Amino acid sequence: MIVLKGAEVSAKIKEEVRAALLSMKSPAPTLAILRVGENPDDISYERSAVKKLTEFGLAVQSHVWPADIEPEAFLREFESINRDPGIDGILLLRPLPKQLQEQEIEHRIDPLKDLDGISPINMAKVFSGDPSGFAPCTAEAVMELLKAYEIPIVGRRVTIVGRSLVVGRPLAMLMLTKHATVTICHTRTADLTAACKNAEILVAAAGSANLITGDMISPGAIVIDVGINVNTDGKLCGDAAFDTLNGIASMATPVPGGVGAVTTAVLAKHLVKAASTRRGHSTPRA
Amino acid sequence: MIVLKGAEVSAKIKEEVRAALLSMKSPAPTLAILRVGENPDDISYERSAVKKLTEFGLAVQSHVWPADIEPEAFLREFESINRDPGIDGILLLRPLPKQLQEQEIEHRIDPLKDLDGISPINMAKVFSGDPSGFAPCTAEAVMELLKAYEIPIVGRRVTIVGRSLVVGRPLAMLMLTKHATVTICHTRTADLTAACKNAEILVAAAGSANLITGDMISPGAIVIDVGINVNTDGKLCGDAAFDTLNGIASMATPVPGGVGAVTTAVLAKHLVKAASTRRGHSTPRA
Repeated sequence: MIVLKGAEVSAKIKEEVRAALLSMKSPAPTLAILRVGENPDDISYERSAVKKLTEFGLAVQSHVWPADIEPEAFLREFESINRDPGIDGILLLRPLPKQLQEQEIEHRIDPLKDLDGISPINMAKVFSGDPSGFAPCTAEAVMELLKAYEIPIVGRRVTIVGRSLVVGRPLAMLMLTKHATVTICHTRTADLTAACKNAEILVAAAGSANLITGDMISPGAIVIDVGINVNTDGKLCGDAAFDTLNGIASMATPVPGGVGAVTTAVLAKHLVKAASTRRGHSTPRA
Repeated sequence: MIVLKGAEVSAKIKEEVRAALLSMKSPAPTLAILRVGENPDDISYERSAVKKLTEFGLAVQSHVWPADIEPEAFLREFESINRDPGIDGILLLRPLPKQLQEQEIEHRIDPLKDLDGISPINMAKVFSGDPSGFAPCTAEAVMELLKAYEIPIVGRRVTIVGRSLVVGRPLAMLMLTKHATVTICHTRTADLTAACKNAEILVAAAGSANLITGDMISPGAIVIDVGINVNTDGKLCGDAAFDTLNGIASMATPVPGGVGAVTTAVLAKHLVKAASTRRGHSTPRA
């Protein structure tokens, strides 16, 4: 079984980003990360994003507010960042605390700065197969991983387990646009094993540890694991029981070290695309 | 094989529309149909929509422009209808002539009047499973037909042949929101027969006469035919060869007389929903 490593994909994306930066004027494209409260998952993601983007030669600002910020104050702060011509892209860490309306932000965020594809304009572009917008970084990380490892998609049977707005639904549309035959499964699917066994490429994006095991896949299948879970020993693990895939899957991504490592590289690529578009350069291809 | 008749579904929707109208003040909800040029398909659809909506107690205005109208003139006319408080819903017959930019209209149309779900706001709602918007009438007609015949969807294997923005993609999202396990096929699908045979409910929306035949489906399957094609004898026909389904499918829709007859009823239902929302009534459920 070939282990598909996110670091190698990230290195390829870094080369693309570096090449694109050569033709751009200073200042470096600038990302604003918006965090409300001290959620450890948010802090961890923010840290890895800052590290990755800085390595890539990009600039990052962190904006942090207390978890109990008033809705009006947050909206005011958000709008000032949203309109700031010095900021090329925005990443809003979610979910937000309950007093804040995420939908309000989704509708207000400048689609040209919306690197994680939360605005209706970008959702509609992903839905309709228009590559000019931004898909959610995690969904696009799966596509980048397949591309980097030169895994063909056209005409192949892809099963996606999970129908979230962050991965399952947008990934189904990206796969469809690349001519895969796509099946979407979820908690209400009657026979999950049959749907998984039917897949040439299986994407696990259910958020459920050890949901997918080797006996559920066909020999030679490629397993892409988008899950990030914590197992009973307190260790990070994916949606697939990685060890059980060995000898059955032809290729699989580990967790950690698989799709997650690509997601922040996609964020960097999106930032360069946003800066190019906003500054009137030609945009790198999505 | 039970023949699923659109007229019966339309009659049920008519009752719902009539009931909703009882609690609404005059004037009757008003649809504006916008047609550019004299395309026979457009004229035929317009005629059936006017007939259906009038029968349902709704008002229709037809706005027709010459095929060579200048873009600026068309935009001016469009905006005046878009802003007219006396118009509750808009149906733009498409495709438009080449000199006109459909995308410009999609972005300008008031999402609250956008009965056929062409605006990014409504696309994003369909994509995300939010029922407050408008899905394309044809996609929703399939859901109404299944509902009227009390055909369960939850957990069932639904295969959709076709990935258009008008049927395949939105219908996949509507089915997913209703908990079906959804597979989307298209011209690049390697083994269409296998994907069709796997379906408990098969939706043919490819726009290709006789693409689906009885030997491609499993015994007991339900076939919903969204295709509207003209065969070599000049007669209307669907994507499925209807006669070949007999003895294999448990239920199937004919063409004509199936989904097409429901589409204009859904347009009427959407118009009432639009009028209720715009006038501040509670909206009927989607």
